[in-house]
Amino acid sequence: MAQQKELRSVTEWRIKMTDGSSEALAPEAGLACRAWLAVKGLIMGLILKVCNFFEKAWNLGQNEPRKVIHCLKVGMALTVVSLFYYMRPLYEGMGGNAMWAVMTIVVVFENTVGATICKCLNRICGTFIAGSLAIGIHWIVSQSGKEFEPFINGISVFLLASAVTFSRFIPSVKKRFDYGAMIFILTFSLVTVSGYRVDKLLELANNRVYTIIIGTALCIMITMIICPIWAGEELYMLITRNMDKLAYSLDGCVGEYFNDSGSSSDDDKECDKKFLGYKCVLTSKATEEAMANFARWEPAHGRFNFRHPWKQYLKVGASMRACAYCIDALDGCVNSENEVPESMKKHMSNIALKVSSESSRVIKELARTMKTMTKSSTVDYLVGEMNNAVLELQEDLKSLPTSFINPQPLQGADCPEKKKTRTVALMDIMPLVTLTSLLIEITTRIEGMVNEVEELAEMGEYKSVADEKNQKQPAVSKTNVPDEHKEEV
Amino acid sequence: MAQQKELRSVTEWRIKMTDGSSEALAPEAGLACRAWLAVKGLIMGLILKVCNFFEKAWNLGQNEPRKVIHCLKVGMALTVVSLFYYMRPLYEGMGGNAMWAVMTIVVVFENTVGATICKCLNRICGTFIAGSLAIGIHWIVSQSGKEFEPFINGISVFLLASAVTFSRFIPSVKKRFDYGAMIFILTFSLVTVSGYRVDKLLELANNRVYTIIIGTALCIMITMIICPIWAGEELYMLITRNMDKLAYSLDGCVGEYFNDSGSSSDDDKECDKKFLGYKCVLTSKATEEAMANFARWEPAHGRFNFRHPWKQYLKVGASMRACAYCIDALDGCVNSENEVPESMKKHMSNIALKVSSESSRVIKELARTMKTMTKSSTVDYLVGEMNNAVLELQEDLKSLPTSFINPQPLQGADCPEKKKTRTVALMDIMPLVTLTSLLIEITTRIEGMVNEVEELAEMGEYKSVADEKNQKQPAVSKTNVPDEHKEEV
Repeated sequence: MAQQKELRSVTEWRIKMTDGSSEALAPEAGLACRAWLAVKGLIMGLILKVCNFFEKAWNLGQNEPRKVIHCLKVGMALTVVSLFYYMRPLYEGMGGNAMWAVMTIVVVFENTVGATICKCLNRICGTFIAGSLAIGIHWIVSQSGKEFEPFINGISVFLLASAVTFSRFIPSVKKRFDYGAMIFILTFSLVTVSGYRVDKLLELANNRVYTIIIGTALCIMITMIICPIWAGEELYMLITRNMDKLAYSLDGCVGEYFNDSGSSSDDDKECDKKFLGYKCVLTSKATEEAMANFARWEPAHGRFNFRHPWKQYLKVGASMRACAYCIDALDGCVNSENEVPESMKKHMSNIALKVSSESSRVIKELARTMKTMTKSSTVDYLVGEMNNAVLELQEDLKSLPTSFINPQPLQGADCPEKKKTRTVALMDIMPLVTLTSLLIEITTRIEGMVNEVEELAEMGEYKSVADEKNQKQPAVSKTNVPDEHKEEV
Repeated sequence: MAQQKELRSVTEWRIKMTDGSSEALAPEAGLACRAWLAVKGLIMGLILKVCNFFEKAWNLGQNEPRKVIHCLKVGMALTVVSLFYYMRPLYEGMGGNAMWAVMTIVVVFENTVGATICKCLNRICGTFIAGSLAIGIHWIVSQSGKEFEPFINGISVFLLASAVTFSRFIPSVKKRFDYGAMIFILTFSLVTVSGYRVDKLLELANNRVYTIIIGTALCIMITMIICPIWAGEELYMLITRNMDKLAYSLDGCVGEYFNDSGSSSDDDKECDKKFLGYKCVLTSKATEEAMANFARWEPAHGRFNFRHPWKQYLKVGASMRACAYCIDALDGCVNSENEVPESMKKHMSNIALKVSSESSRVIKELARTMKTMTKSSTVDYLVGEMNNAVLELQEDLKSLPTSFINPQPLQGADCPEKKKTRTVALMDIMPLVTLTSLLIEITTRIEGMVNEVEELAEMGEYKSVADEKNQKQPAVSKTNVPDEHKEEV
């Protein structure tokens, strides 16, 4: 860090120097001098870029120390496996084939335990199946005579490589066995082709399988023992973190609309950024799917058993995304140019804020349910509260027309639209109506989230805090949940 | 195909047999018989699964013949490269190192040209740099005496492997040089470690580089000459196809709301599915980014030159996604339970349909612009029309209150809410107001799309149909486009 700072200060000093000298020299500068300055500038630029790169890397390392640990683990695994070369007894057992152990580690060692195990199993199975098949074919071919061998080999490589490459496009294969299929092609081609020239084919294949098993075992051991990063836990953290973000964004968007009352300054924009957490939810699908895919290879760890329903997390994620789409639309509509008269805004403010805070309370409760992995005793009650707030909001909206059909003396005389209240009325309250309507839609989608999380709690066998407590709680909402909203989500 | 049909008919026949026999035998069946039936059922299930798998594969192949061609290309490349083993003069030049050519082809041959080139360049550079570095270190170490070699080697492998693994987490490296970094670690470890035992290290490294260059050259040639699949073109097609889907969905959602007038049958649900094209847009981000990443490695092809602004496609994609979020919210709100009185619906129907059709015309025009790669002469005019329709829609909405404050005799007496028109009025028209508001938001976001596509047309140097024609066109909309909506998108 100290070194870096020094470097940067040197760079800054040099840039100052360059600037100063170029200004002073520019009028009388000869061609050589200019060229020198250009080169200097270029080098400076390069140094700056490199410094920037290292600064970024440093920040990344500080923010996510587990990534640094992963790197050290890779370095360690490689150093350990190279002992096979340095120690004579080990080398004599393996010979040059120790290369395959090194290669396995480099290729197979992934960030999360699940990804590493997935690749390891794929590599072992792919190598073993392809190797056996290739040796079998080689044996059959060797009976038929040397002159046909290249043709039969060529045809078998062509056919199998094409077929297996094609299978990699099939979604169910791609999701789980993509790497294994590639290793299958690789091993089959290598064994078949080199079988033509190598005599001790079986020994070669044997050695290769051993070294690969050594490499994968080392990988799995190191990745699982030293500060393991579990894909399942990452997925779990991602989902709960995103839930919190969603709750915060929903609160923020609605709150901002009713609180800031038109004074848009720089502060507001900063505020705005804070409420954009839901944007992370919008685009999290790919990450979630990758994580869930790896998580299913992981053994029981922490609070998750082997058959933890990782797939259900994807459904929870999807329901969260449906919610986030609505928040995005809400954010857009609410920030449109149409200004609502302050009086109308005040009229609705309390209840709209109540709906949003009740909604985000439900989301937070869901996040809490997942974090503690206990069935929530209050979520039904909270959903009921949320639905009650929605009903109140609808009632309040119903009362609006009367108040603007018979215009009462409005407080706050800073409202120029007052004169033409009668004609522009509906246009004026349009953002309010839209907000209401989107809030209602959001509550529907939140109920979708509740259902998915409850199913997760069922499948993941979450503990219930106290069963008798559960029964005392009034089951307000359950009857309100319409059956159709599952299709919408 | 014929074989497959036969297989399936056999399976069906067997299943019938099993069903029949199990019903007949169930009462008097002994344990052995039951076990036999269980085994039979298991085998049947397996056969069915395999049949299903092959059917899926067959359909995939029929739908996307280019994938089949890709597989044949992989098979061909592998067969060609195995000639290095079968032909004596070639084998004598290469020896066992020909293995590296085979391996290169299996690992590097990707579906699209861009991905293949990216991996090839990464592999060559990674191998070359790491090889040189390792040989350099080996030379220095060899001066210092054999006994220190393992330690210095070990430390250098540990440090470099850790550092390069870490660099793979930095986004800018990950995006372009992830594979190269992995190959760097692989080569460096292999050369450093085997340098301890192999004497002719330079020759070995040389051979390896040659074989890798041969393998990559073959890959690039085959992938570019035989039915090339360009990542850039895929991205381009994806974006234009998604635009058409978006236009169709928008039209469909609004049209469905106004046309079907409450009669929800099974037909409707099928209709619904057709309009869900926008869902593809919602989750297309990851694919688009991968494609754009590969496209930049591709040479000029078809209508795209080397420096085609692929990054701008991502921006277009993002603006489309913003639009799709709104359509999703629209779809949800519109399908909620609140029923709008028919008369109100009719009152708004024409103009709302007009807005949606004008909007989708703009999207279609954008898609056409991209498809023909000519600057559109009509898009400004169409945007103007769209904005005019929005104004009309707003006017119509303004006229609504008067019509429901002084209730006129309504046609269509099937409307039970009529009695309490005065009080429930606003609740009744809420979906209409929301629809309007979301439509307006969608048009704003469509203008964002227009801006991005226009920028693309500028950067991609699209031809303009006729410059003078362009100037005659009234520039209606340009002044209407607010500056802020870029932030929203």
